[in-house]
Amino acid sequence: MIDTKNRLSLRRLAIDTYRENVAYMHRDCPLYRTEGFQALTKLEVRDGHKGILAVLNVVDDTDIVGVEEIALSEQAFAQMSLPEGTRVSIGHAEPPASMEAVLRKLRGERLDADDYQAITRDIADNRYSKIEMAAFVVTSGQTGLDRDEILYLTQAMANTGKRVRWQEPLVTDKHCIGGIPGNRTSMIVVPIVAAHGLLIPKTSSRAITSPAGTADTMEVLANVEIGPKPMRRIVEARRGCMVWGGTANLAPVDDILIAVERPLGMDSLGQMVASILSKKLAAGSTHLIVDIPVGPSAKVRHMREALRLRKLFEYVGDRIGIHIEVIITDGRQPVGRGIGPVLEARDVMQVLENAPEAPVDLREKALRLAGRVIEFDPDVRGGNGYALARDILESGRAARRMGEIIDSQGRREPVPVGKLSFDVKSDSDGMVTEIDNLLLARLARLAGAPMDKGAGVDLCKKLGDEVTRGEVLYRVYAEFPPDLHFARELARQTSGYRIGEAVELPVHTFGL
Amino acid sequence: MIDTKNRLSLRRLAIDTYRENVAYMHRDCPLYRTEGFQALTKLEVRDGHKGILAVLNVVDDTDIVGVEEIALSEQAFAQMSLPEGTRVSIGHAEPPASMEAVLRKLRGERLDADDYQAITRDIADNRYSKIEMAAFVVTSGQTGLDRDEILYLTQAMANTGKRVRWQEPLVTDKHCIGGIPGNRTSMIVVPIVAAHGLLIPKTSSRAITSPAGTADTMEVLANVEIGPKPMRRIVEARRGCMVWGGTANLAPVDDILIAVERPLGMDSLGQMVASILSKKLAAGSTHLIVDIPVGPSAKVRHMREALRLRKLFEYVGDRIGIHIEVIITDGRQPVGRGIGPVLEARDVMQVLENAPEAPVDLREKALRLAGRVIEFDPDVRGGNGYALARDILESGRAARRMGEIIDSQGRREPVPVGKLSFDVKSDSDGMVTEIDNLLLARLARLAGAPMDKGAGVDLCKKLGDEVTRGEVLYRVYAEFPPDLHFARELARQTSGYRIGEAVELPVHTFGL
Repeated sequence: MIDTKNRLSLRRLAIDTYRENVAYMHRDCPLYRTEGFQALTKLEVRDGHKGILAVLNVVDDTDIVGVEEIALSEQAFAQMSLPEGTRVSIGHAEPPASMEAVLRKLRGERLDADDYQAITRDIADNRYSKIEMAAFVVTSGQTGLDRDEILYLTQAMANTGKRVRWQEPLVTDKHCIGGIPGNRTSMIVVPIVAAHGLLIPKTSSRAITSPAGTADTMEVLANVEIGPKPMRRIVEARRGCMVWGGTANLAPVDDILIAVERPLGMDSLGQMVASILSKKLAAGSTHLIVDIPVGPSAKVRHMREALRLRKLFEYVGDRIGIHIEVIITDGRQPVGRGIGPVLEARDVMQVLENAPEAPVDLREKALRLAGRVIEFDPDVRGGNGYALARDILESGRAARRMGEIIDSQGRREPVPVGKLSFDVKSDSDGMVTEIDNLLLARLARLAGAPMDKGAGVDLCKKLGDEVTRGEVLYRVYAEFPPDLHFARELARQTSGYRIGEAVELPVHTFGL
Repeated sequence: MIDTKNRLSLRRLAIDTYRENVAYMHRDCPLYRTEGFQALTKLEVRDGHKGILAVLNVVDDTDIVGVEEIALSEQAFAQMSLPEGTRVSIGHAEPPASMEAVLRKLRGERLDADDYQAITRDIADNRYSKIEMAAFVVTSGQTGLDRDEILYLTQAMANTGKRVRWQEPLVTDKHCIGGIPGNRTSMIVVPIVAAHGLLIPKTSSRAITSPAGTADTMEVLANVEIGPKPMRRIVEARRGCMVWGGTANLAPVDDILIAVERPLGMDSLGQMVASILSKKLAAGSTHLIVDIPVGPSAKVRHMREALRLRKLFEYVGDRIGIHIEVIITDGRQPVGRGIGPVLEARDVMQVLENAPEAPVDLREKALRLAGRVIEFDPDVRGGNGYALARDILESGRAARRMGEIIDSQGRREPVPVGKLSFDVKSDSDGMVTEIDNLLLARLARLAGAPMDKGAGVDLCKKLGDEVTRGEVLYRVYAEFPPDLHFARELARQTSGYRIGEAVELPVHTFGL
């Protein structure tokens, strides 16, 4: 409720509180006590018809906010878009209108398309506090989203930001749901597909909890922070690109929800599908290969879960007009040898350059994925994609296209691997029967990846390899002694490798 | 993970972020980009073995935080308890250990006593972000707490703060679950019970969403912000007191969770029971009367819900050693005539002074509650409490004790009612068959209560009263024209009264 007597002078505070609007009021401000404002009180700051919602922080320093002032965090001030010094009125805020739908979801109801539109619109407009966002995320994760709700959420999130249009009937993409270290297939798939002639404008993320995202690894070779216009010019010239997706403002509500889900370790299948497909829809993709790795330490651990996820992708994809092919792949171990930006970039370049030491698993997986993307081309006969992809790779055309893309984005100076290292060795004879994806990812992060580009883990042995006692399993690289120390401590507790007998090797029965 | 190379200079920032630790880092800080910190990233700020967790805000103003500094919000800085300028290391934080239990609750599991201890301990130690707190609150509200979980949560919350000990075998209290405007029975019950000789050290809350809490109304007559030591002296001298509970640090985690629940409009029965009883346990109560008003616009709308709530109170009370008697009362309309601090204080004093115009319903309800408290006295025969309470009231001993308590706490100058007012009149002849508690509470708040002590609503007609067209139903008081205007607008849309026929009067079948 807004009351015209409650007027304070507006001030901008250069604090970035992400998507939660924060208002700062001095503890001695006459409104603070008399209005019954409290910690976490949500205020409405209003000037005539224009108002924003913000959460209250109380300040004891008049250099930050005076007693007759109300200061707003960056985004809140920008949203208010009034000059500093404007007299604004302050009152208790009503919750955003769409919280009513969140409360219905809390009571176990299904929500409809309009509800999801209203919720994402209010979140995009910074009307939700972190508490309200968390309530939405938790209740969606807990009561579950049925497949229509996933569809509505996908569409609603895609509608909140920019939509890219490519004036072409066929805009391809590939996406892995993540969780497998190494696995930098995109950097091989994109130049192959682009060299074939299909459009593949790839935007990728940076690592959040992993030792490297495609954007981090590509950044070893080229600039990846490229705005929408230069990106379009590069894609027109090269048919493909590999840039960081953070600047594009595609489905921004997805980024906000991920920022809330991440600290909760929540990763429900429904939220994952909506997150991935809202981004693809906003990016203008028409044809998408989704890679779901399955394995004991992968995100998806059982075939039945992978199949459920596949059906969800297909259901939503069909209804938002994206042709989706889901490929279930071997997620029992890291793909390639290197884990960490420089080491992964090395693997990628070895494959593209047809080097004899190139990791076979990375090459094979990338060729199969590229082959499936190429088969989206109506002129390619079903089943011929792999051979076409292999020809493009072996002829050097993929490497050439990669070089052109790197030059277009801005080539970078080579970065060496970390100058410190230690080896982890086998303590027995036998066969490698298990490699823990999570442990190796954690080790690479401890060693400094992705922050230190040259830090990471280089695998010498993979599943099924015979080893003898004392033989090196992998080498850890770091730039700084404390990182090396922490990584060594962890590796001492557990190497992440199990050495056993051939019969213990888990059977892998799903395609790639 | 903490890395000794990531060192910044510690700075205190005079911003009160309540129970969420916030760390402020400059956007140009070398750690910001290279560490992959992001919005809502949770950091660990560490010096040797001592570390705190904090959520990141990014700052663009070197007056607030320099590029080589890390600034902490008030509570975070206090918790770190190191001088400004100390070089501290910064790293990504692991979630607090007890989040593992919250995630189990998210998956639908029951938690045990140790889990609730760990969760409340981490919350009390500011290790939870708002997002994590919201996840706990939402999942507890959504999956529900069984009665043992309510017990564990009650005990755990009582253990987080101070515990008051009264060196007496019988420490009485009364508590209403709220939701009924007026209803200031405590201010009559306390002097009666104290005059009888039982100990009744009453701490009350201020209004959060209501037009007045007992602390707001008592504050019209006396100082209520009284520290633990003076409070103890007052209680020793007078056998009772009526102070604001906010300074006592009793079950502080309860206050934190309420601050998170409030914006979500969550008020599950389990959380309500744990909230009330953890405070009573911490306050040293041994005997408690709980008042549950039931009515169509009360918090509890059906008798079956009231009975469920009664059993929960009894179950938990028995196990934490508090003797609880639950009384289900008439919640169909406000109790007394006044709504708002000054008007309610007037009603209370009329009852205590046996004034002929004193509201009969408030007097009767207070006498019955006081009688039940007095019957906790082993020397009082069951059923005799009411008569004893009435004797104490009619003899003037209650008024005298009230005067002594007011003098001990610090008497205040009388405050007049609001100088502006308007009347709401009946638009038909008939009988008052419905009064909407929620609407009248909202009207009183719009008029300025509890901020403006003299603002509020004064009821001239109650349920069952005959009215003629044009007769005044109630009068609204305000201090400021805009408040009066907003209240008048609402009252014009709906008066909150229904005028009908005698047969429509809802039957009231539950005791008081």
